Amino acid sequence: MNPVIYTFLGPEGTFTEAALLKVPGARSAERIPASNVNAALDAVRDGTADSAMVPIENSVEGGVTATLDAIATGPDLRIVGEEVVPITFLLVARPGTRIEDIRRIATHGHAWAQCRGWAAENAPDAVHLAASSTAAGALALLEPGSQPGDAAICAPIVAAEHPELEVLATDIGDNPGAVTRFILVARPGALPPRTGSDKTSVAVPLPEDRAGALMEILEQFAARGVNLSRIESRPTGRYLGHYFFSIDVDGHIQDARIASALRGLHRISPETRFLGSYPRADGARPLVKDHVTDAAFDSARTWVDGILGH
Amino acid sequence: MNPVIYTFLGPEGTFTEAALLKVPGARSAERIPASNVNAALDAVRDGTADSAMVPIENSVEGGVTATLDAIATGPDLRIVGEEVVPITFLLVARPGTRIEDIRRIATHGHAWAQCRGWAAENAPDAVHLAASSTAAGALALLEPGSQPGDAAICAPIVAAEHPELEVLATDIGDNPGAVTRFILVARPGALPPRTGSDKTSVAVPLPEDRAGALMEILEQFAARGVNLSRIESRPTGRYLGHYFFSIDVDGHIQDARIASALRGLHRISPETRFLGSYPRADGARPLVKDHVTDAAFDSARTWVDGILGH
Amino acid sequence: MNPVIYTFLGPEGTFTEAALLKVPGARSAERIPASNVNAALDAVRDGTADSAMVPIENSVEGGVTATLDAIATGPDLRIVGEEVVPITFLLVARPGTRIEDIRRIATHGHAWAQCRGWAAENAPDAVHLAASSTAAGALALLEPGSQPGDAAICAPIVAAEHPELEVLATDIGDNPGAVTRFILVARPGALPPRTGSDKTSVAVPLPEDRAGALMEILEQFAARGVNLSRIESRPTGRYLGHYFFSIDVDGHIQDARIASALRGLHRISPETRFLGSYPRADGARPLVKDHVTDAAFDSARTWVDGILGH
Amino acid sequence: MNPVIYTFLGPEGTFTEAALLKVPGARSAERIPASNVNAALDAVRDGTADSAMVPIENSVEGGVTATLDAIATGPDLRIVGEEVVPITFLLVARPGTRIEDIRRIATHGHAWAQCRGWAAENAPDAVHLAASSTAAGALALLEPGSQPGDAAICAPIVAAEHPELEVLATDIGDNPGAVTRFILVARPGALPPRTGSDKTSVAVPLPEDRAGALMEILEQFAARGVNLSRIESRPTGRYLGHYFFSIDVDGHIQDARIASALRGLHRISPETRFLGSYPRADGARPLVKDHVTDAAFDSARTWVDGILGH
Repeated sequence: MNPVIYTFLGPEGTFTEAALLKVPGARSAERIPASNVNAALDAVRDGTADSAMVPIENSVEGGVTATLDAIATGPDLRIVGEEVVPITFLLVARPGTRIEDIRRIATHGHAWAQCRGWAAENAPDAVHLAASSTAAGALALLEPGSQPGDAAICAPIVAAEHPELEVLATDIGDNPGAVTRFILVARPGALPPRTGSDKTSVAVPLPEDRAGALMEILEQFAARGVNLSRIESRPTGRYLGHYFFSIDVDGHIQDARIASALRGLHRISPETRFLGSYPRADGARPLVKDHVTDAAFDSARTWVDGILGH
Repeated sequence: MNPVIYTFLGPEGTFTEAALLKVPGARSAERIPASNVNAALDAVRDGTADSAMVPIENSVEGGVTATLDAIATGPDLRIVGEEVVPITFLLVARPGTRIEDIRRIATHGHAWAQCRGWAAENAPDAVHLAASSTAAGALALLEPGSQPGDAAICAPIVAAEHPELEVLATDIGDNPGAVTRFILVARPGALPPRTGSDKTSVAVPLPEDRAGALMEILEQFAARGVNLSRIESRPTGRYLGHYFFSIDVDGHIQDARIASALRGLHRISPETRFLGSYPRADGARPLVKDHVTDAAFDSARTWVDGILGH
Repeated sequence: MNPVIYTFLGPEGTFTEAALLKVPGARSAERIPASNVNAALDAVRDGTADSAMVPIENSVEGGVTATLDAIATGPDLRIVGEEVVPITFLLVARPGTRIEDIRRIATHGHAWAQCRGWAAENAPDAVHLAASSTAAGALALLEPGSQPGDAAICAPIVAAEHPELEVLATDIGDNPGAVTRFILVARPGALPPRTGSDKTSVAVPLPEDRAGALMEILEQFAARGVNLSRIESRPTGRYLGHYFFSIDVDGHIQDARIASALRGLHRISPETRFLGSYPRADGARPLVKDHVTDAAFDSARTWVDGILGH
Repeated sequence: MNPVIYTFLGPEGTFTEAALLKVPGARSAERIPASNVNAALDAVRDGTADSAMVPIENSVEGGVTATLDAIATGPDLRIVGEEVVPITFLLVARPGTRIEDIRRIATHGHAWAQCRGWAAENAPDAVHLAASSTAAGALALLEPGSQPGDAAICAPIVAAEHPELEVLATDIGDNPGAVTRFILVARPGALPPRTGSDKTSVAVPLPEDRAGALMEILEQFAARGVNLSRIESRPTGRYLGHYFFSIDVDGHIQDARIASALRGLHRISPETRFLGSYPRADGARPLVKDHVTDAAFDSARTWVDGILGH
């Protein structure tokens, strides 16, 4: 078997790479940074890489729309794992820079949004300089074009790997407990084994532009005692008000209640896309009520089959 | 194959026998009257008869509780057909009796309940004399013990077969459009074939003494687009407030949406009893929405099986 | 204030009178037996009596359809109280009669239904002789027309008041824990005060002949956290399959959640009839969730009124 | 009365200003550009401006999270109107630039996302240069620092006002029908009058981290026949998986069914925030079913009040 090749939303030194490094074996494997989420997923689709780590949800900023949309369209991909990484930000600059001298802070828009309060209080004269990633903004400080008064907001991993940057402040995020959830995505293949602490993700287009359809979708889960852990609406792009829903539920498609709920979804919305069943990062196990255990489903099937003479 | 032996809620000359005579072949078959619903059903259970015609519902009086309870308990039986018979009543007496002389009117309590308005207006001095059946009340008029001023309320079939009774009034029911629905019951065996205009009957004990359970039961039907045509609550006899529900729905257990709904019922209420799938008396065909056709169920199953690698 | 005049489903000596005697003050008040449920209710409607005690539900036989139908039609009446009475039956006969000699057992059909098992085992040769009430059957034994081998099934109250009857057997009911629930009915007037352990009764015609309507009705209760303690379907008599539902819920119309649910019912089914709010016989208090307390309703109203500028 | 002062998500020349100019009177009023959504809303909150036009939803990119979050937190604001603007993009550059020479395309990230397909095909060698707005990117072309090979993607309004920019291509968006919806926001005050074609917006925090809560919220609307036209989940920032829902429904809070639904929401989620009732941009009128008209609500209230003796 060939060694696994990973790709991830680059560049190196971002929280995404930190998430990837938590995957067993990834530290010693080939890791190819991608310039954006679509590029990372396309690398998996065309076989350049075997799996991709991309962010999907941040506890402060919400869903990562590029990822939500990219896995819901194009050739099928499968989520095979997830990682949750605490988001802590550093302020870095070239050695000798003082916080009071800072005039420009380079970073990615998402990072800026999460440190805006700190910046307003501690560097009120500084303006945001948009960077393509937190790492890119930090590394640009080491480039010739950098000016006095430039600083950057980045992840701890960058400072650890670039001691030539000076850390002016740590933990400058406005939400101390912020975390980002990342998913590991592969081509369709064998399902990750059921562990009892699993998550299943689907993308469900609303069959019609009406409120009732969302309730019908939720009822498919409720009727089988399936708990939702995430639901996001995303525009399909067809017209204002036409959505698909990106949904995570507790359980594995090999659980009878999940398989049954997915069949129900497919009937209501035949374009429903299965995005994967995979172990939860937190290891939590759902409470499964008596009437929706595998045994209850088996017993019900046996009963009806007996009547039908099967 | 041996000839079919029928039993029915007797005696001869009641609406139940009229219902039985509508069954193809019944007129020339052996027909054994039974003294009550339980006796009729027990005759089927023990093989004395092959099938039994018993009343189940009257448009004025409601469900026939003896039947509802008897088929929901004891050894399994199956409803294999239904008949709907208009209920029209006659007043009969010995020849020469005048309506104004009538002092006692013999009939079954149900019949009396349905003619009480007519009696109050036309024979205000007459009292009700309880009879075990409408036919028994009428035939007793021909017995030695009958007194002047005695009359009876009975079905047209009795007068037709006993010209020695004089018909004093016809159509004396207070509800001109009254009908009674009868069911034909057999031992479990091959299901009546699916016709596209079918009915399925079940008895569903409430799993717990709470309102939510009834909604969960109804949701099993609603989630599959299954229409209820009848629902009756009956006490289980265990304690005040503990019910089972006797339910008829549109469709045959060989319809995927019905089989799926029954599996759901079984999970919620494992003591659910299947009482039969059989052709509707009125021949009406339900509207089946796109997402609950057999094709939609097949497609959903194929989709999930594909993901599971089955 | 004039003394209260009671009526009840007679004759004297039935379980209904026993229920009435549990009402404070009834033992010393005037008590007029009525020949049937309709007569009792009509006596209240026309002022002959102030309130009527009638049976509404038996733990074995189910709802008393005559009562369910009579209070749901005709001029408005209000349930103002309920009583639950254990149903225990005696076998009585003229002194000297032996059980093995019994050939006919007179009693009301409902009582017969509840002692049929005992009779089949202990007096297999006896036939049922329909009586208009358990008391009437017993008292007829003392009449000249009574024959040797006659017996009757009746309530303990009859034997207590008629020592000339011999008790051949006690507790002969097939369901030892059987109880009947009775309601006390008055003309509309001041509501019984809210006690915190109350019941509210309504009669709700299905707005259309479809299953969805029943769910809409139940949702009106579920959306306000209101628990159903009884639901019975009854035909309206209009056509086969057209029902009204007789429903009891936990709570008093002066509870905000009940008033709100009734408003919802009225919108869905404008012919909904309020049958009364009254103290529960068992004194149980419902658990009321935080979001449906009177305080929650008040707070919500105040909030919306503030926005509307009221 | 003082003249109205408007603010909007600037700078001048964006689609947001185009939306503002559709408001009657805005063309001749004072219009202050704001550097971001929060700044625009804060200007209204502190009285610097009377109302603010900000984007809330794009048919391709989805909800504008900055706006969704900003109006759901901080001091109360009210949406008083909405505008829908078609999003069409131009490619502009300094005169003489040829498409094949373009190396950098400056524009806002959202605009880039919507023209990425066109750029990949027509200017495959060009990289994206992040700009704080589409207008800023275009106007920077006129600055000294601009280099040969620079271009920008901007709105038609910019080119119209800056003839010194050359239009190299029009309608370069990947989704020809793309539109953005904008909202006009003011301080709380008199509600916009009910027109019969209205929309109501609310922000509803999930009361607990469980799927059932979302269904309870949706049921509050469904039970009153209220249609949802938009639903977006947004993180509250408290922890991963804790959401609020930003919801638009058809109708005005002065409609009884909307007021009733809002009361229900408040009971389930007391932190629910009312964001405004205002005329729909498209003038569509919802179909209001018989049982949820103002008349039905009035009739239900009168009925219950009559029983309560109010």
